[in-house]
Amino acid sequence: MSMALNPQYDAIGKGFVQQYYTLFDDPAQRPNLANMYNVETSFMTFEGVQLQGAVKIMDKLNSLAFQKIGRLITSVDSQPMFDGGVLINVLGRLQTDDDQPHAYFQTFVLKPIGNSFYVEHDMFRLALHDV
Amino acid sequence: MSMALNPQYDAIGKGFVQQYYTLFDDPAQRPNLANMYNVETSFMTFEGVQLQGAVKIMDKLNSLAFQKIGRLITSVDSQPMFDGGVLINVLGRLQTDDDQPHAYFQTFVLKPIGNSFYVEHDMFRLALHDV
Repeated sequence: MSMALNPQYDAIGKGFVQQYYTLFDDPAQRPNLANMYNVETSFMTFEGVQLQGAVKIMDKLNSLAFQKIGRLITSVDSQPMFDGGVLINVLGRLQTDDDQPHAYFQTFVLKPIGNSFYVEHDMFRLALHDV
Repeated sequence: MSMALNPQYDAIGKGFVQQYYTLFDDPAQRPNLANMYNVETSFMTFEGVQLQGAVKIMDKLNSLAFQKIGRLITSVDSQPMFDGGVLINVLGRLQTDDDQPHAYFQTFVLKPIGNSFYVEHDMFRLALHDV
């Protein structure tokens, strides 16, 4: 059972996070995130709203109205999963346009497919009520 | 494939979170959390420190020095997983003893076993650098 654990989980997690946010934070490249989700089996929960499938997920991501994103990654925690996937938790700070910066956290579950991965689970929350 | 999705994932997530923190927040009951972890296949990442197996996880939880816990749950997001498990994200506020309250987030992956679940993945982070 434990043979399926990918020993590279930490590098995979950090590499994925860098790649994902490079695309996300550039409005011109954001549509390319579609390649990271499966057309049927990807789930996203965005501020409590649940979406399934790459089309609905990209509709949501493409609808985000802000133009400027200031992002600071505080931590990236990864764990290997028994199907060869990787669980990734990101804690960071996010400032959109001229709003106040807020802490946010995002969770990804990467599912292996061939020599690559797709995002099977994605959850995003801003921590709006900081002290 | 999608037949394995548990349609009760939202109730399972909310019920688990309530049960887990009821035990966690009472020092007299905290040792009972051991029953929620597998002796070999449970992973915890606690403030970036990775632990595997119920014994090491419980050593960590039992070593936490605070006596009083004030906890406020802001949100619980759950998603069904394709092995019948449940992915749960908790955003909350935590005050230990007389420290400042901080936002925290915690992620659980519940793995089905018979008619129940155990915690296969657990990640915890405080957001210490609030605005």
